[in-house]
Amino acid sequence: MNNIITIGLGLIGGSFNLDLKKIFPDASFGGIDKSQDHVRAALELKLIDFESRIEELNKADLVVIATPVDHISDILSECLEQINENCLVIDMGSIKSKICTTIALHPKRRNFLACHPIAGTEFSGPSAAHQGLFEQKTMIVCEVEKTAFKLQEQALEIFKKMNLRLRYMDPIAHDKHIAYVSHLSHISSFMLGKTVLEKEKDERDIFDLAGSGFESTVRLAKSAPSMWTPIFRENKENILETLEEYIQNLKQFKTLIESDDFNAVFNEIEHTNQLKEILNGLA
Amino acid sequence: MNNIITIGLGLIGGSFNLDLKKIFPDASFGGIDKSQDHVRAALELKLIDFESRIEELNKADLVVIATPVDHISDILSECLEQINENCLVIDMGSIKSKICTTIALHPKRRNFLACHPIAGTEFSGPSAAHQGLFEQKTMIVCEVEKTAFKLQEQALEIFKKMNLRLRYMDPIAHDKHIAYVSHLSHISSFMLGKTVLEKEKDERDIFDLAGSGFESTVRLAKSAPSMWTPIFRENKENILETLEEYIQNLKQFKTLIESDDFNAVFNEIEHTNQLKEILNGLA
Repeated sequence: MNNIITIGLGLIGGSFNLDLKKIFPDASFGGIDKSQDHVRAALELKLIDFESRIEELNKADLVVIATPVDHISDILSECLEQINENCLVIDMGSIKSKICTTIALHPKRRNFLACHPIAGTEFSGPSAAHQGLFEQKTMIVCEVEKTAFKLQEQALEIFKKMNLRLRYMDPIAHDKHIAYVSHLSHISSFMLGKTVLEKEKDERDIFDLAGSGFESTVRLAKSAPSMWTPIFRENKENILETLEEYIQNLKQFKTLIESDDFNAVFNEIEHTNQLKEILNGLA
Repeated sequence: MNNIITIGLGLIGGSFNLDLKKIFPDASFGGIDKSQDHVRAALELKLIDFESRIEELNKADLVVIATPVDHISDILSECLEQINENCLVIDMGSIKSKICTTIALHPKRRNFLACHPIAGTEFSGPSAAHQGLFEQKTMIVCEVEKTAFKLQEQALEIFKKMNLRLRYMDPIAHDKHIAYVSHLSHISSFMLGKTVLEKEKDERDIFDLAGSGFESTVRLAKSAPSMWTPIFRENKENILETLEEYIQNLKQFKTLIESDDFNAVFNEIEHTNQLKEILNGLA
């Protein structure tokens, strides 16, 4: 890999680049971002070596697309027009069905590998990028069989060196599952934050009582609207389904408390404690 | 302080004792717990020096009540019958109105200081106890003016040595505020855990996609039913109010997604991002 170009220079694109620079110390790293502030910051932070342009993608050996998810399909199509036939293109989008469908019949489909790293923080932008973000994290790879074998190999070699744990899934299952373990967590956290903020208008000093439990539960509510609004739009149907189930569970729990059925409340909590074993089993 | 007796030898009582032992290295520490397993573990872990009994409270200089919240009022009444007139009694209950009301007219009301440390983890029992749990945490003190001045002084001296940050509140405001920043967080987390666990029955490997965001948001769902069921019962009215507001906010957010009003979704998230500054301001 001599020429690597990253499109989208935020937390994910920037952190991925920092790892790539360790793996390919002699490669040149170009970067593209529609925000000139991001480009400047990425240059200062040495996430990239120079600013690049879509028209220069024909020189690239590897293109990484790490923009907000609603731009990926369009950028990917443009990108495939420009690249040479040996170039590997990967994306980092957190929703996969639409991207895979859009690109399904493209003549250069085999240059593309659809990826989603389960990594991130509540912070965003180039300044949030840091080395090691992907260490021991899970990388979901979709429709691996649709990527050229040689390019698959190159990608998997990189992921291995980054200590990513690979999981292969089809895009539809991916989008459904991720709605539960990521998108719903964010909505529950955003709305918890909102509920408490609204209350604080009338009741001052409410945050004086907040402990680490509250802080942990609302951590995701600090996440950027520019990232999450497109995710909620792109995964709308799955999110509506999970959100409805969540609301129904909350309503049922409320009914148990209202009707003083605290044996059932106890059982609900005890049942949910199963998460202890499951989460301890996660890397 | 020569004789200290703790009733309830779990995470809070045990951790508080470990700090007290540093402050009063020459005092003797008795412990009472209805679970003989807890008493044995507390002895082994040196959280206490010996098992004590309610009938021996007359020798105590300090009694700490750290049982689940539904037993505190009864134990406190029994306790006040037994103690000598110079003894300080503090509790650690996370709901304060009922305790303060029950004890309001007791002839030994002035021996009691109503407390709630905003500290804890999702683990429980004597084995979860550890030194430093209260370091830099907030200690809520209710109705401080109803406690004898000398005993107030003794308590505040201890809290100061533990590096606790003091906040004085009336019990009704306490119970209302804590429903937002603690009890609602727990319910949102329990139900998030439940929703995902239910889905996992049909869709295997769902937890393979879980990242640190999910783990943070469901951390509280590991909390013990024996602690939380009584809290939900004792603070029922406040919890029902906050829970209804939370459900309404979730339903409204769902409606925005359903109706493709993603500008409003963006604004909701951006508004909630205010939490960043507030949470960074917390100790």
